[in-house]
Amino acid sequence: MGKLLESIKDASDVKKLNTKELDMLCKELRDEIIDKVSETGGHLASNLGAIELTVALHYVFDSPNDAIIWDVGHQCYTHKILTGRDITGIRTEKGLSGFPKSAESEHDIFVAGHASTSVSAALGVAEAKKISGSDNSVIAVVGDGAFSGGMIYEALNNAGRSKTNLVVVLNDNEMSISPNVGAMAKYLADIRSREGYFRFKDNLEHTLLKIPVIGKGMFDILRHIKTFFKDFFYSSNTFEHLGFTYLGPVNGHDVGMLIRALRRAQRIQRPVLVHINTIKGNGYEPAEKDPSKFHGVAPFNKENGELKKASSDSFSSEFGKILCDFAQNDDKICAITAAMTDGTGLRSFSERYPERFFDVGIAEEHAMTFAAGLAAGGMKPVFAVYSTFLQRAYDQVLHDASIEPKHVVIGVDRAGIVGGDGETHQGIFDIPILTSIPGITIYCPSDYSELRSSLKKAISADGVQVVRYPRGGEKSIPEKFASEYGDYNYYESKSDCLIITYGRLFVDAANAANETGASVLKIGKVFPIENELIEIAKKYKTVLFFEESVQEGSIAEHFGALLYKTGFNGKYITHCVSGFVPHMKVESAMKLHNLDFESMKNAVEEALK
Amino acid sequence: MGKLLESIKDASDVKKLNTKELDMLCKELRDEIIDKVSETGGHLASNLGAIELTVALHYVFDSPNDAIIWDVGHQCYTHKILTGRDITGIRTEKGLSGFPKSAESEHDIFVAGHASTSVSAALGVAEAKKISGSDNSVIAVVGDGAFSGGMIYEALNNAGRSKTNLVVVLNDNEMSISPNVGAMAKYLADIRSREGYFRFKDNLEHTLLKIPVIGKGMFDILRHIKTFFKDFFYSSNTFEHLGFTYLGPVNGHDVGMLIRALRRAQRIQRPVLVHINTIKGNGYEPAEKDPSKFHGVAPFNKENGELKKASSDSFSSEFGKILCDFAQNDDKICAITAAMTDGTGLRSFSERYPERFFDVGIAEEHAMTFAAGLAAGGMKPVFAVYSTFLQRAYDQVLHDASIEPKHVVIGVDRAGIVGGDGETHQGIFDIPILTSIPGITIYCPSDYSELRSSLKKAISADGVQVVRYPRGGEKSIPEKFASEYGDYNYYESKSDCLIITYGRLFVDAANAANETGASVLKIGKVFPIENELIEIAKKYKTVLFFEESVQEGSIAEHFGALLYKTGFNGKYITHCVSGFVPHMKVESAMKLHNLDFESMKNAVEEALK
Repeated sequence: MGKLLESIKDASDVKKLNTKELDMLCKELRDEIIDKVSETGGHLASNLGAIELTVALHYVFDSPNDAIIWDVGHQCYTHKILTGRDITGIRTEKGLSGFPKSAESEHDIFVAGHASTSVSAALGVAEAKKISGSDNSVIAVVGDGAFSGGMIYEALNNAGRSKTNLVVVLNDNEMSISPNVGAMAKYLADIRSREGYFRFKDNLEHTLLKIPVIGKGMFDILRHIKTFFKDFFYSSNTFEHLGFTYLGPVNGHDVGMLIRALRRAQRIQRPVLVHINTIKGNGYEPAEKDPSKFHGVAPFNKENGELKKASSDSFSSEFGKILCDFAQNDDKICAITAAMTDGTGLRSFSERYPERFFDVGIAEEHAMTFAAGLAAGGMKPVFAVYSTFLQRAYDQVLHDASIEPKHVVIGVDRAGIVGGDGETHQGIFDIPILTSIPGITIYCPSDYSELRSSLKKAISADGVQVVRYPRGGEKSIPEKFASEYGDYNYYESKSDCLIITYGRLFVDAANAANETGASVLKIGKVFPIENELIEIAKKYKTVLFFEESVQEGSIAEHFGALLYKTGFNGKYITHCVSGFVPHMKVESAMKLHNLDFESMKNAVEEALK
Repeated sequence: MGKLLESIKDASDVKKLNTKELDMLCKELRDEIIDKVSETGGHLASNLGAIELTVALHYVFDSPNDAIIWDVGHQCYTHKILTGRDITGIRTEKGLSGFPKSAESEHDIFVAGHASTSVSAALGVAEAKKISGSDNSVIAVVGDGAFSGGMIYEALNNAGRSKTNLVVVLNDNEMSISPNVGAMAKYLADIRSREGYFRFKDNLEHTLLKIPVIGKGMFDILRHIKTFFKDFFYSSNTFEHLGFTYLGPVNGHDVGMLIRALRRAQRIQRPVLVHINTIKGNGYEPAEKDPSKFHGVAPFNKENGELKKASSDSFSSEFGKILCDFAQNDDKICAITAAMTDGTGLRSFSERYPERFFDVGIAEEHAMTFAAGLAAGGMKPVFAVYSTFLQRAYDQVLHDASIEPKHVVIGVDRAGIVGGDGETHQGIFDIPILTSIPGITIYCPSDYSELRSSLKKAISADGVQVVRYPRGGEKSIPEKFASEYGDYNYYESKSDCLIITYGRLFVDAANAANETGASVLKIGKVFPIENELIEIAKKYKTVLFFEESVQEGSIAEHFGALLYKTGFNGKYITHCVSGFVPHMKVESAMKLHNLDFESMKNAVEEALK
């Protein structure tokens, strides 16, 4: 850790530094972040892009009285360090969360993880401050990627007319997770390109204000003859139409300029948008060259940026491959992603079938209804989306795709426990919300081969079809359980105890059955629940259901309701995920919720006693 | 029915009329709509505003080959009539749906009911047409109110860059359901005011094109020297920033002008936004004067616009009154609505406490996160929202308000069966989605007095607190069941049969118990389910649960899971809503799903046999 960095015990210490020291501090922060993230993995590129901004924010504003709210939150490492936290081991069980977390610090004002929420939250805090008579500022820091999400426009539409001290910092790096798409991105590039614009305005204003007597008056007159001088003082752009004062563009790696712009924003005492240009991965060559790789990166060698462990195959990459295969013989198959081309394994689809590939930006709601529109037009759309982000499109699945059923396939990626990203990214709610919608079919494959057969069934069927799979890759299965998987597979033994499960948990279940002799019912088509499954289960004295979902609304719960209707009077014991799951290894979380091999084995042994 | 109207058997017949006849047709349509809606009730003001537009659309375009997609869909009555449907008895069991419905006609391309979805759906259909090699147009008709919803920006962000024949008609009447709010509304007013602008452009272009030889060339040159002539030919506005060709504003009650503008849009063969100005309730004085009253109106006297039955009190109006009472003694209570000030009973709150009242527009996602922000700032926000629209904010309740619990109160209005609005508006999914979120508390009062006590508890507690109540008013309860209601009330009889229910169903349950002698467990705090309730239920031979929710994820299902865990071996029978419920009277729907008095009585008698 650098010398200056060691002297920072608290955000207020930043204010004591001079310009040269601030620059040095940024250098030390950069080294610290590269050093620590190279060990644990994490969001590197976004954090390297936001160092100068974060230093400037803490220099100008008085956190936590002035509230700093991070959009998505994966750019908050500098903020964590400057507010007295050690990022060693970040995202691991013993370290900090990789996202803002109020339990860690009073400086983390609001939860983050999903995109485009910060302005809504910040406006709420700002209105609360206004009602309480405080004139402190509230600052939302938003990447340009979040501007493809509709929620931010809902917020801006309200924020512009509010009489609050709200500052929205648009951290524009021409990227969300993948290079940013859409008209808004183009528009931002347009205004971004006006280099030196802010400096010019800044200087002119400065000069005019310095002329004694006429200075302030002249400035005010000029300011008011807006129709004429608009282009000099204020660019007329969408943000101004929305009621904001626009300041920018500002070089986001020049601490001095950032401080001047933020001070101006602070003085204005009404909603201001400060547009800054930054470079993702700034100051670390490997990340600058490949910011997508270093968006969320595994542990790497900091000398050359190479990953410590080669990346391997995964359900996501297989999903992409399989979809490409299918699309070769079916020219109606379209693929849709919400800014996750790489994450969902669709890169190669996007290259092979560009006319049938749609990256819609961070816009899950639009993605879902757009998919329903494609289906209405005769296509076979496949929308690949992380479970946690599908939460955003619940109404669209229900209202636009299900009331008048459209044949839409949803690939639910990162379903179940996700590991280091923690609470905001767990995929444990899709089962309850999807099963509440009439007419939906859900498949949960346990390996790549079943992923292929599930996807095939989903694409051949009708209505809303869901294929749900976890983060990471398949695991090997004890030989006698390895087979072609159908809608269900029943491994009958002489035991009184039946394990029911699906998806990746089947591997541990098979192992537990191997050791204990329990029967296993593996379900591949998990919803709707077919009667045959109930008929099998009701013969047992003890039925154990293991599931990577919250309990309320789980398949286990629906299954139980049907099972008891048949007059079943054995024991029915469900193991699900309970509550929000913080950042920890997948294995640790599984253990904690009794979903690992040992717990399954113990549960069977307990039942057989 | 007018003469011309009688001659229209199909949309193509509109094309045969001349200008004068088109005007006459509009007049006849207006009379027909006023006549029929005065009998059944329905969305009047929006339909009267869209008559000329709809006639022009069917004159210019070739439906259903050209796809017309309605946003929200409550303005589609003229479309229904022109495509050969009779609106007599609309919204009643025997009549048409009040919204587009593909089962009714091939001209109804896409479901509608919720706002801001049309551009996403239309873009999907348009991309499908492009992939299939069709050059037909796809037209989305959107009110300005929908521009406060973020989803439309997600769609526009993608649509602008698409190479599709997409026409977005912005039907601008300065209103959503209430007068429209926010910066976007102001901005639209700004460009709307440029009267004659389209006519000017139209004429100039026309004139230039008529000059032989140089005509077309000159026009093209002028068109390309955009930097110079931009202000003449193309106003530079947000829609153009988003990649659309902008045409407008056009007088939306001048069929001739509309036809010219739409023809131009059709020719352009790339995304076009046609901005038209209309008057809600146009041509019917009572509706023009009070468009909010005539947005969704009950049967009325068409001579003077007076309602046939005086509007009475309701859970919504009581909710507003109670909240006003509480706010008088607690200056931290804030109220939030998403464009439903009147619908949710908050009018008087908005007048008494303007600084603590927020109408955010049709923006449920923002509303929820904004509420969480207010809570983070120390306020006590109460967000009143229809159950069906809360579906939009699932992720915001979970991610922004629950992971780090914020004390937010959600007033879930129109919970349960809603009646004439049908499938898209039923309030039968909030229980499954809300109960899937860890830490939520839900109250379901049965009458106004319990509404007050529930709301009081919700405001005094912590975390996300939900108070859920139906459309309409309270009903009287048999005397021996009328009491102060607590978290639960247990009416024990000597019967072996227990009815469990909550909310308005309690009235019928009490009546059924009165006749059959069954015991009743009325739950007021329905979630989380307390152990005491399970202890009561497990003593019975038969437990009957009646609930206005879909089955999967219902309280009944959660209750069953807990009940069986105790070793209960009686009968547990649940009656919930199954599937999507079409438009019909609440009473009819209740009967259909075995949730009415007779069904309850029969169920008990069956159990006691």
